[in-house]
Amino acid sequence: MATARPQVVILGAGFGGIETAKALRSAPVDVTLIDRQNHHCFQPLLYQVATAALSPADIAWPIRHILRGQTNATVLMAEITAVDRECHCVMLRDTDPMRYDILVVATVATHAYFCHDEWAEFAPGLKQIVDATRIRRCILLSFEQAELTHDDAERQRLLTFAIVGGGATGVEMAGAIAEIARLTLARDFRRIDPRTARIVLLEAGSRILPTLPPALSDYARRTLTRMGVEVLTSTPVIGCDRGGVSVHDRRIDASTIIWAAGVRASPAAEWLGAPADRAGRIIVGPDLSLREHPEIFVIGDTAAVQGPDGQPVPGIAPAAKQMGRYVAGVIRSGLTSQTHAPFRYRHAGTLATIGRRAAVVDLGAFKLTGFAGWLFWSVAHIYFLIGLRYRFLVAFMWLWDFLTFQRGARLITEVAPQPPLKAR
Amino acid sequence: MATARPQVVILGAGFGGIETAKALRSAPVDVTLIDRQNHHCFQPLLYQVATAALSPADIAWPIRHILRGQTNATVLMAEITAVDRECHCVMLRDTDPMRYDILVVATVATHAYFCHDEWAEFAPGLKQIVDATRIRRCILLSFEQAELTHDDAERQRLLTFAIVGGGATGVEMAGAIAEIARLTLARDFRRIDPRTARIVLLEAGSRILPTLPPALSDYARRTLTRMGVEVLTSTPVIGCDRGGVSVHDRRIDASTIIWAAGVRASPAAEWLGAPADRAGRIIVGPDLSLREHPEIFVIGDTAAVQGPDGQPVPGIAPAAKQMGRYVAGVIRSGLTSQTHAPFRYRHAGTLATIGRRAAVVDLGAFKLTGFAGWLFWSVAHIYFLIGLRYRFLVAFMWLWDFLTFQRGARLITEVAPQPPLKAR
Repeated sequence: MATARPQVVILGAGFGGIETAKALRSAPVDVTLIDRQNHHCFQPLLYQVATAALSPADIAWPIRHILRGQTNATVLMAEITAVDRECHCVMLRDTDPMRYDILVVATVATHAYFCHDEWAEFAPGLKQIVDATRIRRCILLSFEQAELTHDDAERQRLLTFAIVGGGATGVEMAGAIAEIARLTLARDFRRIDPRTARIVLLEAGSRILPTLPPALSDYARRTLTRMGVEVLTSTPVIGCDRGGVSVHDRRIDASTIIWAAGVRASPAAEWLGAPADRAGRIIVGPDLSLREHPEIFVIGDTAAVQGPDGQPVPGIAPAAKQMGRYVAGVIRSGLTSQTHAPFRYRHAGTLATIGRRAAVVDLGAFKLTGFAGWLFWSVAHIYFLIGLRYRFLVAFMWLWDFLTFQRGARLITEVAPQPPLKAR
Repeated sequence: MATARPQVVILGAGFGGIETAKALRSAPVDVTLIDRQNHHCFQPLLYQVATAALSPADIAWPIRHILRGQTNATVLMAEITAVDRECHCVMLRDTDPMRYDILVVATVATHAYFCHDEWAEFAPGLKQIVDATRIRRCILLSFEQAELTHDDAERQRLLTFAIVGGGATGVEMAGAIAEIARLTLARDFRRIDPRTARIVLLEAGSRILPTLPPALSDYARRTLTRMGVEVLTSTPVIGCDRGGVSVHDRRIDASTIIWAAGVRASPAAEWLGAPADRAGRIIVGPDLSLREHPEIFVIGDTAAVQGPDGQPVPGIAPAAKQMGRYVAGVIRSGLTSQTHAPFRYRHAGTLATIGRRAAVVDLGAFKLTGFAGWLFWSVAHIYFLIGLRYRFLVAFMWLWDFLTFQRGARLITEVAPQPPLKAR
């Protein structure tokens, strides 16, 4: 391979980064994709790992396996510590810097606690595989400890689950926890009745699923309420601690608090010295490059881009993929000094599942709710999984669990090892 | 439920504990099964989790789910801190003590480092789910770091895997790592060739698989050698550290060391004040009870029992299950003051798999090697998995991976979170 080929370095192997790399498959460039994880995570199903329906490996695939057949692509598992824009170098921890001709910043967002980072300890968010196994451990341990305790107030606290944020993730988590309590665990305990668990969904705004039409928000609220979830809208959280959450007029004692309220872009803006919006997303030009550094592109969660309707492009997988494909096109055009039309986002639709028989689907003119919505949601998500093996496995597990009301991954792992037993 | 029913408390939800609880299903007793984990782990396939072929949830099931239909059984997830034999109480961390009329000690064994516990840090053993995910992380990270390094000696060290102990676990791990390097990862890297990895199996005795007939040991050795594993017999390890292992005449630099050399019983002997053998296993009477405490039974890995041939009963799943069924029978007889014949171990056979097309099977008169052995091994292990769901899933994954040379669970999880990126 000639060393004169342009070096394209992509930071982050989320939906945007993977799509950019794949779209450069036949381009005369060398692609290096850098991520600190070895896997690409299918985030839309992460809540199913957190609620014990799927295993981590069902929705996360080795990045280098995804790109194994693409000979112009190298994958490095390394932590990015800085970017030197003058030298065109990405600094990596514990290994040599990586030179680039073209840089694509595709780092993914993290949780935002609205200036209350101390809440992170008590209210984990859901962005990575480790977050999901942590939340799974919290939920399952709460039921185990409730079975052990002899204190009524503590038992009630252990069986209370507070979900902060009424977007798609919050709605999906609330519905799934309600099903765990009412269906999956119903017969598994002897001293407690898991069906008495209290699940509270807290939303600061006036309705849940605010990006959907009001009729669908209403439907989601009614469905959750029927499943036994308390939906509290116009209820901003003003405090989180080990014992529970505080809202303006009351206190909710809860052992499990799940944060689904906000996202913040990766610190790439600070690190590139580029102007950013309030959420930390980098302001990019019409071709998604930086104004003063046309060799640096920013895509996905890290880019502040406006859609054709003047609204910001949402931080969802289809948007990141569209940006990835677009930037790959700009790079290919640039190699032959052609110009390229500005990026234009096309919104395909919004989907959120509520439970084992309900979902809301908004494809603009075409809207679905209930079982039809749930079927559409299931088929769409299986279709987007990578690889036949996983499509088949996940379809089988969903069908099985649907028929049996079970969940196949109810593991509490990483409990601290037992100290030596003492003679008495 | 009348409170006058005898309280049977079982410590540990391994094969022995689960079997005892199940065999007491229709007995007029209340059963309480206590384990510090929430899951029962199918240990014979743990090496497949460590080598990324299966996910933890494929071989570990919630204990309370296994016993959900058994109304006389209660499951508690709690850590046992001591036993008070005079008061007939089991002490539990953070919750009330548990009174028993009959106690069944079914705690599982842990690794033995032969008075070198400091080796544990560098050479993890394989007994629990967390051990398996730790070893999986070690193996996969070694290849990732080898791809990053520019130092030839370090690369060679990163690509060297030392397995200490030539029993079934050591042979299975060595074979599986050889397949990962030669087949699974062959096309996934750009800077290294995973096929150059060095896999060394170190056995102190004169042959591997010493409990099998010499002809089968020979077959296993030849097969491993053909797969590229260096099999070193009569080679006791005299040191383990971060850089590798030392044997009498040389040093093997290795980034991954896996301990499969010895087991030690749980500390139950010390804690019951009962006489034990050198491996810490409690000396029991012919009915598996303690001489001075006929209400305390000890089974599985924790019991020192002789088979009909005068040899110690091996620490394998079928032996633990036989003891569990036997003790349940003794308990039932005791309720009607009947006597019971002494425990008699029946050895069904010994199986070990070597790779994707070879295994050794010794059923006494009936012996198998090669592909036929592998098929027998696969069918036997799928049969013993709990639940149709898992039998089907594992069979599907094995078939798929057999046809594609892949492994479905190549995840490195629990990497330390990335610190904030710095501007430069």
